[in-house]
Amino acid sequence: MSRPAHRRPEYRKINKDLFVLTYGALVAQLCKDYEKDEDVNKYLDKMGYGIGTRLVEDFLARSCVRRCHSYSEIIDIIAQVAFKMYLGITPSVTCNNSGRSEFSLILDKNPLVEFVEELPAGRSSLCYCNLLCGIIRGALEMVHLAADVTFLQDRLKGDSVTEIGITFLKKLDEKKYRRKK
Amino acid sequence: MSRPAHRRPEYRKINKDLFVLTYGALVAQLCKDYEKDEDVNKYLDKMGYGIGTRLVEDFLARSCVRRCHSYSEIIDIIAQVAFKMYLGITPSVTCNNSGRSEFSLILDKNPLVEFVEELPAGRSSLCYCNLLCGIIRGALEMVHLAADVTFLQDRLKGDSVTEIGITFLKKLDEKKYRRKK
Repeated sequence: MSRPAHRRPEYRKINKDLFVLTYGALVAQLCKDYEKDEDVNKYLDKMGYGIGTRLVEDFLARSCVRRCHSYSEIIDIIAQVAFKMYLGITPSVTCNNSGRSEFSLILDKNPLVEFVEELPAGRSSLCYCNLLCGIIRGALEMVHLAADVTFLQDRLKGDSVTEIGITFLKKLDEKKYRRKK
Repeated sequence: MSRPAHRRPEYRKINKDLFVLTYGALVAQLCKDYEKDEDVNKYLDKMGYGIGTRLVEDFLARSCVRRCHSYSEIIDIIAQVAFKMYLGITPSVTCNNSGRSEFSLILDKNPLVEFVEELPAGRSSLCYCNLLCGIIRGALEMVHLAADVTFLQDRLKGDSVTEIGITFLKKLDEKKYRRKK
């Protein structure tokens, strides 16, 4: 896939505060709409899924990512390329099982909560950033990789770090998700 | 106001696609919540107002903007500094009255609608980007400037350009909105 020459990378950069505050407005709206935290979480995940399916094509085109040979490589690309590109941060990665299909992204900083001091009152089960899980899930699905993506820890809930767990659900099939060179 | 030295400008930059798609999800949610376009528009404006009131302090600190002596100067700062910083574009400015209190920002490009081909079905009165009007209104109010901010033209509605009208509502009072040097 080629990109028009006039779409320079710097044109795609913006200050993130506007995004962070707009995301806060979205979460606030969903909290108005849905009484149960679980429903807000589901809806954020669903929205994120839709965003991920649209974002992935552009990401692959711009990042020039080549074929991956393992889940570890895919996770490294998510952490080092995708998070860096879209949120300006690079989470650290841990592998959580011997089968090398369960991973965690550890976020020291989370720009999405930069203006959030604590969860809204009565919203202790809210996964404030659940949009991110949906985005990762949607993007992976577009390259034929099924995965569970959930928050395992969250600083907004008093944990020491924010941790996103990614569990790949199928045996890796290279043919399915590799990209043409 | 000073900023901590470690908050370098590049840390604040992100790719805009994530923001643009998240904004689209927000508008879609409001269209679900409110039947009338006017109500969606009002709500977007209200949300934007809240965002503008929070964004302005950071903007003033980072942009190093000094005291303005006229509405024209203020509009130029909005177009050339704020739009550039937050959306990566620089609208052109026109003055619409001899009293030099009514202006338009003309947007050749509008990144917020990059993934939007047309307004949703049955939503012909939707001001898709009305959040921007609210943000400008909120930010101006925080520096003691009352203004009406509305879309006058919109490419999504078939107009040849997108035009945001800004009408300042009070006689300029330098003392009120000038910043300390």
